[in-house]
Amino acid sequence: MEWKNVPPQADSAVSLVTKLMQNAGMFTLEKTTKAGRKGLITTAHGIIPTPVFMPVATAGAMKGITFSDLQTLGADMLLCNTYHLHLAPGEATVKDAGGLHSFIGWDKPILTDSGGFQVFSLEAIRKISDEGVEFRDHRSGDLHFIGPKEAMQIQHALGADIIMCFDECPASTAPRTAQIKAVERTLLWAKICKTEHLKLSKKNKNPPLLFGIVQGGLERDLREKCAKELIAIGFDGYAIGGLAVGESEEEMYTVLDWICPMLPEDKPRYLMGVGERHQLVAAIAKGIDMFDCVSPMREARHGNLWLSDGTKLKIRRADYANDHSPIDPDSPAPTSQKHTRAYLRHLLQIGERYGETIACLQNMAMILGTIRSVRKEIDETEER
Amino acid sequence: MEWKNVPPQADSAVSLVTKLMQNAGMFTLEKTTKAGRKGLITTAHGIIPTPVFMPVATAGAMKGITFSDLQTLGADMLLCNTYHLHLAPGEATVKDAGGLHSFIGWDKPILTDSGGFQVFSLEAIRKISDEGVEFRDHRSGDLHFIGPKEAMQIQHALGADIIMCFDECPASTAPRTAQIKAVERTLLWAKICKTEHLKLSKKNKNPPLLFGIVQGGLERDLREKCAKELIAIGFDGYAIGGLAVGESEEEMYTVLDWICPMLPEDKPRYLMGVGERHQLVAAIAKGIDMFDCVSPMREARHGNLWLSDGTKLKIRRADYANDHSPIDPDSPAPTSQKHTRAYLRHLLQIGERYGETIACLQNMAMILGTIRSVRKEIDETEER
Repeated sequence: MEWKNVPPQADSAVSLVTKLMQNAGMFTLEKTTKAGRKGLITTAHGIIPTPVFMPVATAGAMKGITFSDLQTLGADMLLCNTYHLHLAPGEATVKDAGGLHSFIGWDKPILTDSGGFQVFSLEAIRKISDEGVEFRDHRSGDLHFIGPKEAMQIQHALGADIIMCFDECPASTAPRTAQIKAVERTLLWAKICKTEHLKLSKKNKNPPLLFGIVQGGLERDLREKCAKELIAIGFDGYAIGGLAVGESEEEMYTVLDWICPMLPEDKPRYLMGVGERHQLVAAIAKGIDMFDCVSPMREARHGNLWLSDGTKLKIRRADYANDHSPIDPDSPAPTSQKHTRAYLRHLLQIGERYGETIACLQNMAMILGTIRSVRKEIDETEER
Repeated sequence: MEWKNVPPQADSAVSLVTKLMQNAGMFTLEKTTKAGRKGLITTAHGIIPTPVFMPVATAGAMKGITFSDLQTLGADMLLCNTYHLHLAPGEATVKDAGGLHSFIGWDKPILTDSGGFQVFSLEAIRKISDEGVEFRDHRSGDLHFIGPKEAMQIQHALGADIIMCFDECPASTAPRTAQIKAVERTLLWAKICKTEHLKLSKKNKNPPLLFGIVQGGLERDLREKCAKELIAIGFDGYAIGGLAVGESEEEMYTVLDWICPMLPEDKPRYLMGVGERHQLVAAIAKGIDMFDCVSPMREARHGNLWLSDGTKLKIRRADYANDHSPIDPDSPAPTSQKHTRAYLRHLLQIGERYGETIACLQNMAMILGTIRSVRKEIDETEER
């Protein structure tokens, strides 16, 4: 029979494509090993290989990095902040432009957060109720209101590929009573989000995936209750929120150990706001598929460089004033191969922003490179 | 004879190469037309085709543009500020790095200014004498002294391909008495610069070209006297300074009409601090070969975009909030083809620096494109 002559690799490629086509808008788990899971999320803007790290383009742009440089470094997906885009330019303008991808000029997949984290953490003047959150624009002073319905409406208008439920996000170290209330609201809002999302999806040619967010701080029973009830509602993916905001690394990993085994195998899992390279490696081994974090960029701006050998380097120290060796000769960032430590230190010392660009490109190259290394390690590790 | 079979084009290429090799470190005038002159300056870091526009990398970097993007836009040469590099990181560090090209990671030709313009215009606290200028570091408050000898020593240590005489640069609109004194000092210092430069060149494997600077404000006799005496001293090129600092465009062109015909044909001519696209076109037609200016970048940062059709556009105006057309579809800057006006306006309105990057790339593409257009026009215009 003809098909027997198809070489094994092509056969597996064909079957993979078939699998993906059947699963459009879904997650395909390719492999589970002790190093982590490998999968593919199919979206209207392309296939996202997981594990994946999403650079944060707050209001639709990275600070000091062009999208073209970001793609060269291997970014597969971007995260944009609903809160910032709602305030400026507003979702109406973004929708008018043909959606976020057209508006910002990024053609790969995008995830938008719900705005919850920002309204709960950034705003001093606000009123929280079971309906949602009233807050003031930090620029204009205008009053705004975002609740679960509004979060869905805004995110559908923005047009991302993956959108997030509106959740209440207290500090992981907040008292138990605050965590109880947050989980209650998060679950109440998750139901409203799902209903509104299904309604909006009927009018949306490319409806996004909707992820639920597990809250509950460091309280095992609350975390488990939240995860269980979200799974019962049913989402396209599950995020673990409220971590990397004050607790120890050990505590964070403990929460993953509680929750990851509860989550459905066939849905992507997203650890929000994490982080450091070793944290990604550890969390992927515990079954996490997706990450976002501002720390590579923020640390870069403060002169804390992440190097290819896994170490960090405080480039503003006087030690580097005459260090004419390349910033990191093994870096995938061409600027780190071409430019020297003394030059980068000079630029950061005098506040020349090209210094921040070079430093940001370096740390971004490192975090994206870590993801590629882990993917390779999963490839080379036996299936569990 | 064999050589008769060499096709005419190759023959002319061979003779051009021979001519250039004989003229290493010199200027080769290729053509003079009513649209302008076309030539080549041979340096240790490559051949500079003239007319040329030099983007200004103040302390060794452009604000918000990577060198790689700058080369993509067609920059052939960079200008760096001696004043800023002397203060930080200091010429000793630059020399230790192997010179400015190695230090900043730019391998094409570089020109350094003398520092004169900055010490005369930026510093409030200073003491001027016939020996030079004493001034305070605007950051540390430390006292520094730069005179003609120091300017040569610093520039030789920095290692640029073209260096400038230390000159006194009053506003073009300063009174005649101030212009007389400035021309006197400029000529006195030019002699000292030449002597010091020749001395330093003996110890320099790749000695730079040294340019003299014509001062004299809007006073014809002073300008002519300055030019004449500089020519008598003899320099590798001649700059016209003290323009584009307050006088009318008409007055600026008048000074060029006085001076350009006096300057030796076989030396490059550099109009300092200019400018706008139409000014480049006009000045090239009057015989100028080289330009530098911060205005493309400064205007970009203020949201004043230069477009391919020759017009300008104030992108921050509300009119563009929902203009989802490309910034400039005919621009050589890929970011201006990919991104929309509404997006760029949004970024500039909220202070996201990627907005400045996009705007700077646009204006830089325009000014460099103007130079390429004029070169083409000269190619297509009959020799005078």
